[in-house]
Amino acid sequence: MSVYLHDIPLDEAQRRFWEALREVGLDGPLGVERIPLDERAVGRVLAEPIWAKISSPHYHAAAMDGFAVRAADTVGAMPTRPVTLTYGEQAAYVDTGDPIPPWANAVIPIEQVEALDADDRPAADPRHPVRLRIRAAARPWQHIRAIGEDIVATQLVLPAGRVLRPVDLGAIAGAGYTEVPVARKPKVAILPTGTELVPIGQAPKPGDIIEYNSVVLAAQVRQWGGEPTRFPISADDFDLIRSRVAEAARTHDLVLVNAGSSAGSEDFTARVVESLGRLLVHGIAVRPGHPVILGLLESEGRWVPVVGVPGYPASAALTGEIFVEPLLARWLGRQPHRPPTLTARLTRKLASPAGDDDYVRVVVGRVGERWLAAPLARGAGLITSWDPLESTCRHASLSIL
Amino acid sequence: MSVYLHDIPLDEAQRRFWEALREVGLDGPLGVERIPLDERAVGRVLAEPIWAKISSPHYHAAAMDGFAVRAADTVGAMPTRPVTLTYGEQAAYVDTGDPIPPWANAVIPIEQVEALDADDRPAADPRHPVRLRIRAAARPWQHIRAIGEDIVATQLVLPAGRVLRPVDLGAIAGAGYTEVPVARKPKVAILPTGTELVPIGQAPKPGDIIEYNSVVLAAQVRQWGGEPTRFPISADDFDLIRSRVAEAARTHDLVLVNAGSSAGSEDFTARVVESLGRLLVHGIAVRPGHPVILGLLESEGRWVPVVGVPGYPASAALTGEIFVEPLLARWLGRQPHRPPTLTARLTRKLASPAGDDDYVRVVVGRVGERWLAAPLARGAGLITSWDPLESTCRHASLSIL
Repeated sequence: MSVYLHDIPLDEAQRRFWEALREVGLDGPLGVERIPLDERAVGRVLAEPIWAKISSPHYHAAAMDGFAVRAADTVGAMPTRPVTLTYGEQAAYVDTGDPIPPWANAVIPIEQVEALDADDRPAADPRHPVRLRIRAAARPWQHIRAIGEDIVATQLVLPAGRVLRPVDLGAIAGAGYTEVPVARKPKVAILPTGTELVPIGQAPKPGDIIEYNSVVLAAQVRQWGGEPTRFPISADDFDLIRSRVAEAARTHDLVLVNAGSSAGSEDFTARVVESLGRLLVHGIAVRPGHPVILGLLESEGRWVPVVGVPGYPASAALTGEIFVEPLLARWLGRQPHRPPTLTARLTRKLASPAGDDDYVRVVVGRVGERWLAAPLARGAGLITSWDPLESTCRHASLSIL
Repeated sequence: MSVYLHDIPLDEAQRRFWEALREVGLDGPLGVERIPLDERAVGRVLAEPIWAKISSPHYHAAAMDGFAVRAADTVGAMPTRPVTLTYGEQAAYVDTGDPIPPWANAVIPIEQVEALDADDRPAADPRHPVRLRIRAAARPWQHIRAIGEDIVATQLVLPAGRVLRPVDLGAIAGAGYTEVPVARKPKVAILPTGTELVPIGQAPKPGDIIEYNSVVLAAQVRQWGGEPTRFPISADDFDLIRSRVAEAARTHDLVLVNAGSSAGSEDFTARVVESLGRLLVHGIAVRPGHPVILGLLESEGRWVPVVGVPGYPASAALTGEIFVEPLLARWLGRQPHRPPTLTARLTRKLASPAGDDDYVRVVVGRVGERWLAAPLARGAGLITSWDPLESTCRHASLSIL
């Protein structure tokens, strides 16, 4: 057993992890499930492309309330020389959305006609006159939504990998589906370990730490499309942790052990991973967060990836961002998140350990033509200044201009 | 009863709606509920500010595995002139996170000391030596996370109105809370109406329309933090619609009636609203979507806002964006969504009806120094081209450069 872990570069760690996942066939979508097409499908990831089964509209439909006519019957109509059509033979009332009679090919809105009775007075019911007087020719297909205007049967409506938005559900329904094929949600076990941990709600004594990383990790997993399970706190006891990790691997797709990932006297995670499978990486040159463990657990003939997540809150959250989010994205078949990037000038010099990827939280502001980035406190324990999307910069990508 | 609705400008409609809501006390947060502090709180809106009940850390904690010492005892230590400390009296082993003994004020990492036994040979257990040899002075408070480094008791941790992110849950737990005060989810009833509608899964005949707007609206409500209820399809029957709307108002905070909001022969929504309360607006100069109805229903002594949502899919989705999202934001106490804006040059001229706010979907691309916006098909029935965040522009805000 090595007392001190050995940090390797982030890229190298990711390469090893993905290579091992590819070897055991865990680098692609996990599976498909068919769920009812209702509002709960929003945010799920489409697992198969959707090809339209029917056209939408699936018939020629009136786009206005008015009269369906043959355009040819209206040729020559002008304000000063109206054309008169016979209701029933040459015109039929249609509400918006009604099918157009087979003989008609245009709709004249009701407010553009004079609906007359047998004596050429305004009709009592303007929707059912005896004849119509019109003062402008109708263009063929005017105010008609033709078959397939929105979707043509057989066309691609949505590609696989789409994170479903509300309107997508409408498009899928319009294409004739009653269920949606979505990626199965990866099941993620989260195991808090540490004799010093006390659960939320228990008054902490000196040396006690309120265990909330599992809530943060579970919320991340949930937000990224996975299904988290929070295990109870395990004391620093090799056999207990080992049996809980083995149990978690049997029933989950991914196991997160938090923490015990460093090389202290009570850091058992690396040994547990070694005893249950393959330890791929122990220590990554990333700040905050370097004592990260990556491995594969063997469980009843299948492999289950495991991430040893460091204990400091900011390290734990960053480990989620760097390793868990891209893995869930791959398993769900969607694009991984890419935070927006910005090139800014640092307001003061920053020194980072050579070879480390240093994630520094900054506040960004615009001064004149320039974006400025003011580094915030860097402590790995500082959960309050964590703002991954709004103000985190990867040091390596910040230019000191 | 007016056969043709009268379009008013969008700003005027919004002003009338908000004024009526203010009059009846419905323009602010609906209420608070206390939920357990776990991953399901992610995405909920904080209803009260969170003031720290305890500091985090709540004790002086070791930030490294090593030895707690008095910095004064190490003064003068140099590589060539080490200082020797007696274990127990002058040094105590601490793991990361352990409390610092009251007499100590610095931590020296384990890898920076020589742990010796009684004969000055390397100690068998480097964590429990007899004495320590050190070759550099310790700075007071080095490698200690002082009380309150992350959060000081009584400080503001998070303001009300925050949409909770995973790390926020950690900060709230670290501040000593076991529950989170969040805004109660607004209950939104969605009533599809129309004799021509058939539910998803039923093969449509000519003239039938697959009813999916209720799914899109329910998904929007869900995504924006509300709790949707989809009612069954009501045929175009005044009494049926009226009794269902009254029932919905009794048990919900907001009622959406889709559609029947125009002025056709079977458009009953405006009359239903008049018969159950106050019709505020009938017709808004917005494209797509103009036959929108806004009103207030009276139900057992309370007022319940109602929106008559137009039937075309793009109109329905846009009405959700314009009227439902800001209302839910106000009721939840969070900021309304503001899509990112961009000034671009149109690739061709667009004519909009005078006075209308015209929402035109565009594809945006950059050519040289300029952003160009190519307008897409404008049909209100086109659900497939709808992309509110990626490519929708409000015509009024597009500059023709």
